[in-house]
Amino acid sequence: MHDTVIPFDDRGFAYGDGLFETVLVRDGEPLLWEAHMERLARGCVRLGFVGPERAMLDTLPAQAGQGLHVLKLVVTRGRGGRGYLPPADPQPSLRWQFSAFAPHQERWREGIRVRLCRLRLAIQPCLAGLKHLNRLENVLARQEWNDPDIAEGLLCDSAGRLVEATCMNLFWQRDGRWETPRLDACGVAGTLRAALLAERPIAEVAMDTDELAGVDALWLGNSVQGVWPVARLDDAEGNTVARWPITAIHRPLQNAGHALLGYPGLAD
Amino acid sequence: MHDTVIPFDDRGFAYGDGLFETVLVRDGEPLLWEAHMERLARGCVRLGFVGPERAMLDTLPAQAGQGLHVLKLVVTRGRGGRGYLPPADPQPSLRWQFSAFAPHQERWREGIRVRLCRLRLAIQPCLAGLKHLNRLENVLARQEWNDPDIAEGLLCDSAGRLVEATCMNLFWQRDGRWETPRLDACGVAGTLRAALLAERPIAEVAMDTDELAGVDALWLGNSVQGVWPVARLDDAEGNTVARWPITAIHRPLQNAGHALLGYPGLAD
Repeated sequence: MHDTVIPFDDRGFAYGDGLFETVLVRDGEPLLWEAHMERLARGCVRLGFVGPERAMLDTLPAQAGQGLHVLKLVVTRGRGGRGYLPPADPQPSLRWQFSAFAPHQERWREGIRVRLCRLRLAIQPCLAGLKHLNRLENVLARQEWNDPDIAEGLLCDSAGRLVEATCMNLFWQRDGRWETPRLDACGVAGTLRAALLAERPIAEVAMDTDELAGVDALWLGNSVQGVWPVARLDDAEGNTVARWPITAIHRPLQNAGHALLGYPGLAD
Repeated sequence: MHDTVIPFDDRGFAYGDGLFETVLVRDGEPLLWEAHMERLARGCVRLGFVGPERAMLDTLPAQAGQGLHVLKLVVTRGRGGRGYLPPADPQPSLRWQFSAFAPHQERWREGIRVRLCRLRLAIQPCLAGLKHLNRLENVLARQEWNDPDIAEGLLCDSAGRLVEATCMNLFWQRDGRWETPRLDACGVAGTLRAALLAERPIAEVAMDTDELAGVDALWLGNSVQGVWPVARLDDAEGNTVARWPITAIHRPLQNAGHALLGYPGLAD
């Protein structure tokens, strides 16, 4: 059932014991719906409960009506007593909300400025890849800057390997190849990333942060904003450590991503 | 304000962006209240928001009335839009609930059986020690067994060092000294642990899991249950790897903890 309020003893509130998805919906049609449903199902298996019926979930996007919306849906293990032990027969909850949405189109064209975050993501293979509700690391990382000219912050793990941005996945081109960080230690495996990996030659690799300035092109992407090319990279002290002119090299990956989301291609 | 329901856009629900405390309250008088308030205040500083007024918090325990209760209080950063960036002027929320409570007294006397968990806690110094709302690791660890004869599961971090149990802190005696794990990499710094450290000679140390079977006595403790001596330790496969007869060696630490909580001492 859809409730806009959550009981105090919902385990999503008590422990972050649940998962969420943010889905781009155009005129009631969801984009990358299968990828969202797959990640949600994978998350339920990993957390150890049976999620809501797929047939129920499938009815949600059409409720958005005309225009561009983001559907945020939250699935939790439901209500539970005090204590970490889940109820023997949990009744998972499903709640959702639509927000009208417009992507940052100027960022598609002109690119963005990003910074490296100080916070390092903890290595936890049991939760890696999931879009679960334990997001304090992302919240802390996003608080590291408030300059509106900086669009995103890049995160590495405690071993110094690049992982993601606070709410986007990371892609780069090096030696003529497209690459993206492996996400088996931490990070959220985005649905746009999954769809691009399925149809394009993109290698999942381990790369240390200090190699980043040497790549030929760098992008951030997710399933609601599309793909942003990175024009400038600052370190955590605010010093610019790399600049990339936004050129034709950036457009093929952007256009591949935008085709998956129904966004316009970029000519440049 | 106290609400028993939480709005969908509360950041506690969305991201686990908050903290909690579980406080033992006897006849309206809280136990270890200063330690709970100190940890809560430290958590608010670490997460970067101003928590509820202390004067407001101080009014809560008396609402319990007569008898033994647990007061669970949850403080979150309050409502926020979609996205990890906190609002510029957050309005933190405070919610609470009382539950009638009775400790497991037979465990004080007879001791408990525990197991080692397979899950390893991720190393995240930014969140270490806090009782924050991102508790999926504890939930996953607690799901590893359902044998009611096993009272708790012991957790080590990804480097193999002992940290805590799923909802209790860990103490042991070795070479005549009391020790407890350091909690600068992960784990929750319990209030009973803090109070014992403040008044007794207990060393905070790093110890690998495989040294555990060699200690002279082992205990688990928290601020609601008191202190349980450990009689038997199983590994994650269910094989018993150590047994400790419950004797007079266990009573001094138990009695020190119980004095802090108003629980009876143990003679044995």
